[in-house]
Amino acid sequence: MIVQQELNDFINTTKQLIQQELQKRLQNLDIPERLKNSMLYSIRAGGKRMRPVLLMASYEAYHHDREKALSAALALEMIHTYSLIHDDLPAMDDDDLRRGQPTNHKQYDDATAVLAGDALLTFGFEVIAADAYLTSEEKVQLIQLLSEASGPKGMVAGQMLDMEAEKKPVTLAELETIHLNKTGELFRFAIHSGAYLSGATAEQLAYLDQFAHYLGLIFQVQDDILDVSGDPEKLGKPVGSDNENEKNTYVRLLGLEGAASMKQDYVQKAYDALYGANAETSLLKSLTDYFSNRDH
Amino acid sequence: MIVQQELNDFINTTKQLIQQELQKRLQNLDIPERLKNSMLYSIRAGGKRMRPVLLMASYEAYHHDREKALSAALALEMIHTYSLIHDDLPAMDDDDLRRGQPTNHKQYDDATAVLAGDALLTFGFEVIAADAYLTSEEKVQLIQLLSEASGPKGMVAGQMLDMEAEKKPVTLAELETIHLNKTGELFRFAIHSGAYLSGATAEQLAYLDQFAHYLGLIFQVQDDILDVSGDPEKLGKPVGSDNENEKNTYVRLLGLEGAASMKQDYVQKAYDALYGANAETSLLKSLTDYFSNRDH
Repeated sequence: MIVQQELNDFINTTKQLIQQELQKRLQNLDIPERLKNSMLYSIRAGGKRMRPVLLMASYEAYHHDREKALSAALALEMIHTYSLIHDDLPAMDDDDLRRGQPTNHKQYDDATAVLAGDALLTFGFEVIAADAYLTSEEKVQLIQLLSEASGPKGMVAGQMLDMEAEKKPVTLAELETIHLNKTGELFRFAIHSGAYLSGATAEQLAYLDQFAHYLGLIFQVQDDILDVSGDPEKLGKPVGSDNENEKNTYVRLLGLEGAASMKQDYVQKAYDALYGANAETSLLKSLTDYFSNRDH
Repeated sequence: MIVQQELNDFINTTKQLIQQELQKRLQNLDIPERLKNSMLYSIRAGGKRMRPVLLMASYEAYHHDREKALSAALALEMIHTYSLIHDDLPAMDDDDLRRGQPTNHKQYDDATAVLAGDALLTFGFEVIAADAYLTSEEKVQLIQLLSEASGPKGMVAGQMLDMEAEKKPVTLAELETIHLNKTGELFRFAIHSGAYLSGATAEQLAYLDQFAHYLGLIFQVQDDILDVSGDPEKLGKPVGSDNENEKNTYVRLLGLEGAASMKQDYVQKAYDALYGANAETSLLKSLTDYFSNRDH
């Protein structure tokens, strides 16, 4: 079993590495200042860097040399950041604040935010294609997985379904489809590509895909639970907003106890999948608990 | 010398192939209906399919089997189409019509148009990564070239510079920088990647990059000339709009005659580059004349 200190060290070290490398790659671009500043602004806004942390944890479940997994982790965080910038636009969710700071289009303007998102999305693929440590076969596999996960079949589909479901009731199955696309696909890429790069077998990869499936759902259920019962201080935002916005959530569909019990069920299934993948002693297990019990 | 009929046949056959394949690839996607319809709407709106035509012509200057160049041509047109959808948004150029039809966000809504653009951009990279005819090395090279050409160092930079230059006078050098990024980079990708796939040498590729440089400028100068002296019937839009919008154009900076003479100079330089690339008898030469003399 991984002790709490080891997990925290891993998360902090990985976050630092990702933050530093993202800034370096963007700083080095010889591009219009306003575009660069706008890209850097959203990259610096930070956040939990959960997806790169998962990718690195999945990689290190079987392997130990970090260099090979870095460009996939950077591309993943760039694409996640682009999706936040576009989601916040007035045309989409029209959010003024993210993590307590003005959203990209509030800090710059709508046009710049559209372009900064487009640029981060495109640059993500370039970072993998230009990597110095991966073989061509590995690059192609990563780019195919990442474009599938983030494009019209994956994250963009989820965003579309989410917009269409706004303010109308959905079934539990429909809610899961939205989340599996909107956030689950990038989680799956993180887990799958990390393990792929470290040489996991096809059987292990199949188990890890199952694990990622449940991990994404655990993350989302806990998100919905925190919006009802979380501590506004720790969350950095008021609670109860989902209810006010008539958002479709697990708590709304199942009640608070029902959601908590569904989460426990998912945690057990995630453990089982890790066991199948011979990764039950890895950081991934501690990260499952961390996601399930997080208070922000 | 290629006769006019041969050129027209090549253009029409290529347009048909591209149109048909783009539709097929998008139709086959199992994605939310509204997202698919919105992507198809802009893909079907058509246009000259100039970039795929150039890519295919460049490929066939040295080689004859079309299959290998197809996915690069499709990705290129998808990325060009995404850029039009995002450029037309209210946050950007705020255009209601494109090629006589409602723009994507007018036909659907702003959110759908943002997502359709994001989806086409991402799917473009997937189409290359998943191609059945290319080696992994070729895929990586194409993806790197295309992401560089269309991302923050290329097309997105051009769009940013263009927005910043709006309604303030620019120098001829600044105008060229905008065009070389905004449209020139995708032209260069078309010419370069077609020749690369057909096995052109490094020396030939260097000459063809020069050729693409001038071809992009010829295209843009003619665009500016047509806006002043074109036939509104053939153009499908009123003339004189650049002047009304105080747009920076070659005609504004050099006068109509000055722009025409600069275009002739570029045509000669494009010919010279084709000669250096041993491609002076190819379709590319006819396409240069076609671009230079086009009336719409």
